[in-house]
Amino acid sequence: MQSFNPPVRTLMGPGPSDVHPRVLQAMARPTIGHLDPAFIEMMDETKQALKYAYQTENELTMPVSAPGSAGMETCFANLVEPGDRVLVCINGVFGMRMRENVVRLGGEAIIVEDKWGEAVSAEKVEQALAANPDIKIVAFVHAETSTGAQSDAKTLCDIAHKHDCITIVDAVTSLAGSELRVDEWGIDAIYSGTQKCLSAMPGISPISFNERAIKKLTSRKTPVSSWFLDLNLVMGYWGEGAKRTYHHTAPVNTLYGLHESLVMLTEEGLENAWARHLRNHEYLKTGLESMGIDFVVKEGDRLPQLNTVWIPEGVDDAVVRSTLLNEFNLELGAGLGDLAGKVWRIGLMGFSSRKENIILCLSALKEVLQK
Amino acid sequence: MQSFNPPVRTLMGPGPSDVHPRVLQAMARPTIGHLDPAFIEMMDETKQALKYAYQTENELTMPVSAPGSAGMETCFANLVEPGDRVLVCINGVFGMRMRENVVRLGGEAIIVEDKWGEAVSAEKVEQALAANPDIKIVAFVHAETSTGAQSDAKTLCDIAHKHDCITIVDAVTSLAGSELRVDEWGIDAIYSGTQKCLSAMPGISPISFNERAIKKLTSRKTPVSSWFLDLNLVMGYWGEGAKRTYHHTAPVNTLYGLHESLVMLTEEGLENAWARHLRNHEYLKTGLESMGIDFVVKEGDRLPQLNTVWIPEGVDDAVVRSTLLNEFNLELGAGLGDLAGKVWRIGLMGFSSRKENIILCLSALKEVLQK
Repeated sequence: MQSFNPPVRTLMGPGPSDVHPRVLQAMARPTIGHLDPAFIEMMDETKQALKYAYQTENELTMPVSAPGSAGMETCFANLVEPGDRVLVCINGVFGMRMRENVVRLGGEAIIVEDKWGEAVSAEKVEQALAANPDIKIVAFVHAETSTGAQSDAKTLCDIAHKHDCITIVDAVTSLAGSELRVDEWGIDAIYSGTQKCLSAMPGISPISFNERAIKKLTSRKTPVSSWFLDLNLVMGYWGEGAKRTYHHTAPVNTLYGLHESLVMLTEEGLENAWARHLRNHEYLKTGLESMGIDFVVKEGDRLPQLNTVWIPEGVDDAVVRSTLLNEFNLELGAGLGDLAGKVWRIGLMGFSSRKENIILCLSALKEVLQK
Repeated sequence: MQSFNPPVRTLMGPGPSDVHPRVLQAMARPTIGHLDPAFIEMMDETKQALKYAYQTENELTMPVSAPGSAGMETCFANLVEPGDRVLVCINGVFGMRMRENVVRLGGEAIIVEDKWGEAVSAEKVEQALAANPDIKIVAFVHAETSTGAQSDAKTLCDIAHKHDCITIVDAVTSLAGSELRVDEWGIDAIYSGTQKCLSAMPGISPISFNERAIKKLTSRKTPVSSWFLDLNLVMGYWGEGAKRTYHHTAPVNTLYGLHESLVMLTEEGLENAWARHLRNHEYLKTGLESMGIDFVVKEGDRLPQLNTVWIPEGVDDAVVRSTLLNEFNLELGAGLGDLAGKVWRIGLMGFSSRKENIILCLSALKEVLQK
């Protein structure tokens, strides 16, 4: 058994995206204790910067010590009680995963379905809520990583609140990549990942809960089924003014990485980061269209950071992707579910969102397709 | 907001222990995709090496993508069904956490209690199982991180099996630090951490399930309440012969770190690592006893890698620990629960288990206590 030296790839799939060298170096800094005063200071800075990234003043804003899927589960496990009716909007893989969460927690999932590649329909949500006045929570994906479609989070939150529901929003692919305003849009509970538009390593999941969400949490009649994800306990370690009581051992070096990525975000400026992702999307789009490659999602609903395109007729998906990987060290994303074999997902997220990557992607793709 | 440059500490608390520079450097290697063929090869090597570390042939041996507490929850969430009666042995903080897991999952916890600092009593376990023939699972902590006591895992497993129970064992502090033989001792499900005797970063948790445990899992009548920790799903990504189906995004760089720490373990040899931890414990013990400092745990039940000692009469715990931290960059562990303020926990785990650290600890402690 020998040390593992990974190949150097360019990551243009649905995540992880390229991790910035500054983040990699930060992770290699010496580990200190999770209760060390120096570490606690870094935790406070991290929370502050996450508030900026989410555009929120929510005190309960922190990284969960596990990947985005656990961030999702943190929201559902803390907010859904057995018997709760939850409206789940499904327009891709991650909406399906939300339903799975609700059901396993003993909730009842009411489903609003839209086609994969389309945004969540506000009209259908409005109708479903009008027809089911006992629904307590509306859950939807802001940026569907399986399709590259974005939904109108503000409008969906407005409708939910009109019907006295709180919202759980998946922002795994949107955070720091395209406009996201938690407070202004009225998002009640949100989760994301670090391995997409933050240019950081996978493994932890920033979440944020507002007062409405916290009220639902603190008025539960049953304990949260997960000890590890129970925010009542986690906040004894991460909370404002908390005594920093030991709950679990924090992933110290991974948090160094997140901190560094947030330093970089504040240096660039959040709106500049959004603009960069958009600019690079336009650049990629022009190139793809000149090759006759079409987008799955209609203009206006497209996520600039995740470009899902139809694989040209007669082209073998697996052969192209493995050639790109083996000959150019370039990773593109495959389709999921019904879209498997039919689409590629081209990520331009975080540090991967650079003109030099786009040039490489377009040129390599052209060469491989001409073979 | 500026980059975080942590102080360089010597970590001699209950974990995280000092992370070896080779592991830190491994974490800084370029991130690749969690479905990259090169990554999958590394996953296979990691599983193989974890089998060696655990001394098991269990196919289901893998790291959970979250800290040790989530490793604990993985075992309980997959094996305990609502209504199951579980014997939980409590002789410290982590036994209490086991009970908490059982109750939240809808199980019934039958408790066997021993004093903090003592080993789990085999007699009490035998009596409790004889009195409650419907108990299905026996859960105990092999190496209690809150007290430094170790229990006789082999004997406890034998008793459990005699009563037709499977066992869940906490080996967070024992893995790679002191004798642990999963197959020979008949441990059915086990979890550990990476941040103790493996000299690696915190954040992931190696687990192992044998056929008996898998049978309990696959014959469940109810779904696992946690989607994220459901091994039926996780094994589609990590399992032997699995198609490596996407479940969640693996913590790629953290897994590089674990892999490197396992390379180092195979280089040193598992039994040599156990012997090193024991030798260094003796060295520390001689020094502490010459200073009149006594151990909490009686000889024979002591974990060599975690030395819990009584704070001498009249000494202010917090002042001593903060002086050691501020003046010598040396972290010792505080007591937990009833032992808070009364004991120190001196860890000699993994890369922290070195003579130069012990000399530093003894000399610094002597100087601070004489002030």
